[in-house]
Amino acid sequence: MEKKALDEESILKIKQQVVEKLRNIGETILDQINKGENPYLEIPIRHLSNVKFNKEKRILELGSALSKRYYLDVGAVRKFVQTLAVAAISKQLIEEKTHAHLRDIFYMLKKTLPNTNIDLVYEQTESDKAIEDLELITSFSREQLNIGADKRGVVAGEVVIEDNNDIIDWSKMGSGGWSIPSNTEELVFKKVDADFVLVMEKNDLWERLNEDKVWKKLHCIIMGTQGQATRGTRRLLQRLNSEYNLPVYVLTDFDPWGIYIYSVIKFGSINLAHESERLALPQAKFVGLRYDDISRYNLKKHIIKFKDVDFSRLDQISNYDWFKNNKEWQEELNKMKNLAGKVELNALAANGIKFISERYIPEKIKEGEFLD
Amino acid sequence: MEKKALDEESILKIKQQVVEKLRNIGETILDQINKGENPYLEIPIRHLSNVKFNKEKRILELGSALSKRYYLDVGAVRKFVQTLAVAAISKQLIEEKTHAHLRDIFYMLKKTLPNTNIDLVYEQTESDKAIEDLELITSFSREQLNIGADKRGVVAGEVVIEDNNDIIDWSKMGSGGWSIPSNTEELVFKKVDADFVLVMEKNDLWERLNEDKVWKKLHCIIMGTQGQATRGTRRLLQRLNSEYNLPVYVLTDFDPWGIYIYSVIKFGSINLAHESERLALPQAKFVGLRYDDISRYNLKKHIIKFKDVDFSRLDQISNYDWFKNNKEWQEELNKMKNLAGKVELNALAANGIKFISERYIPEKIKEGEFLD
Repeated sequence: MEKKALDEESILKIKQQVVEKLRNIGETILDQINKGENPYLEIPIRHLSNVKFNKEKRILELGSALSKRYYLDVGAVRKFVQTLAVAAISKQLIEEKTHAHLRDIFYMLKKTLPNTNIDLVYEQTESDKAIEDLELITSFSREQLNIGADKRGVVAGEVVIEDNNDIIDWSKMGSGGWSIPSNTEELVFKKVDADFVLVMEKNDLWERLNEDKVWKKLHCIIMGTQGQATRGTRRLLQRLNSEYNLPVYVLTDFDPWGIYIYSVIKFGSINLAHESERLALPQAKFVGLRYDDISRYNLKKHIIKFKDVDFSRLDQISNYDWFKNNKEWQEELNKMKNLAGKVELNALAANGIKFISERYIPEKIKEGEFLD
Repeated sequence: MEKKALDEESILKIKQQVVEKLRNIGETILDQINKGENPYLEIPIRHLSNVKFNKEKRILELGSALSKRYYLDVGAVRKFVQTLAVAAISKQLIEEKTHAHLRDIFYMLKKTLPNTNIDLVYEQTESDKAIEDLELITSFSREQLNIGADKRGVVAGEVVIEDNNDIIDWSKMGSGGWSIPSNTEELVFKKVDADFVLVMEKNDLWERLNEDKVWKKLHCIIMGTQGQATRGTRRLLQRLNSEYNLPVYVLTDFDPWGIYIYSVIKFGSINLAHESERLALPQAKFVGLRYDDISRYNLKKHIIKFKDVDFSRLDQISNYDWFKNNKEWQEELNKMKNLAGKVELNALAANGIKFISERYIPEKIKEGEFLD
């Protein structure tokens, strides 16, 4: 797991490896054609049947099942050509030091094939799948292929990075913070002066902790995900964890939705199982609100009754392998079910607007009793 | 409309005025009590009947109708007390140089009143309304009362600001950009070196323009709103426009949803009509995709057929006063209706990934034929 911090040189080297890999794919196909063979691509199967929870590594990952996708196969030819077309675009993007987003790639592929009335893709799901296939074939991530998606999230702390020749000091970002890009693969850390990372789903909480300079007082990095963490945010977290050994603590409401955000950061998500190695963070810990905090912090008044949708979400989460086989989590989730209600972190404001910064978080971190 | 750029001193002065105003409200009520009168607050009516489109200023605004809210009135007493409680919290926040979010204020007010079983508020809608009332009573914005809400949006350009003692250079933010805070009221501009502001709703487009350094090449500021612009983003736009005379151009898809985002930035929104003076931007221009661009930029292939919900949204928008009485907009919206389809800015990528940066935007700006 442990890696050295990536410097400019190693980042550049990876980029060269990506281009080489893409060229290899093309050359292999050319070779097959020259030999008179039916060209094919070999692709790990992404179907749920091939997604497993690795109990040792504690992440969701793909099994080893492979499928061959042939050019001369009516059922496979579209996907074959789409995947190659994405590979060609990706290679060009990298060589031109340019990035594109999923939606752009869709439009770039949406072309009528010469001498036909057939489009290479009709829907974005087709180009998205071709991109995921290319990730699997190359073992490089979409970001390394210069293809991005959502941009959300914000960060502050005593960290200095270099990004596109700019030196950016996360401790001098005022009330706004640095906005996390969709691709954090090629940032270079110049200085990382922190003991841990605090992650939260809501930007209003991030603004609270930033105003109270929690990152300075507790010597940490604060990161807001604004709902589900993007791949850019998750990769940034993983890099801080693996390159600098920083523990990652996730702060959410006491409700199934918050716990799911934690779950994705920690274990990965089913449809990105092939990317878990690069995105999941098995060492992440939960410092969100817990059942016992309701009495401890006087929040009984602020319990919000569950709706049907909350009950069913809670049931789903309770049945995930990684929560099902964890006694502590089963207890916690059962307590939530019996309570039939949720509690928000904002409710701590009833004890004073700075209560969360000055009491809740320091206490939780000091006690170190995190749900895992 | 035109104002001088706000410096530290004038921002500090406004803050003192807010505190004075809040103290005055309390003193007036005390006075009424001491005189044996029934204490009341005078509040402009926010009902739709009192919201008008000011054709001269071209913004939505509140009419002059006022209502008196008495303490000794069973129907009004809750609101009376809620409003005063918010005023007290706001005064304390300002004096302690602290900010709170709407959700925090709700929990701070959700208290059982002494010797009763009645809560001061039960739902956030109650505290939100009390805050809006306080804006109306004081003529200061929620942000000036140190109460914030959503944080979204990102910015880059040759601008230097001072914020919380940090000096922030928007031209040195790498691929991420500066994350716009919920409250932009008290930023101090140190350097604004730009000819105009380009606003867009989608972060992927913002990343495209940032990577292509459009802000440098076209000497402008690029701002991403991530959907509907927050109050923080709108106020920042308005300040750049009014304090530095920067034209604001809004870049959206050719669809009713994009046009509505433009509409809110320019004219304000119905439920924030009382804040139009501070948030609306009548000088904003539309540089989004237009009907004629479909043939001009070869986008016919990329028309996305309208669904029912698009048709009804288009009808709503066509009936807004400000679009209804504008011949050019009526023509444009009619063309969209006849086309029964929409086109996304991303579709320009079919002409090359940098087409939007190198051709579309420069052409539109150069020609200067904006929809108003």
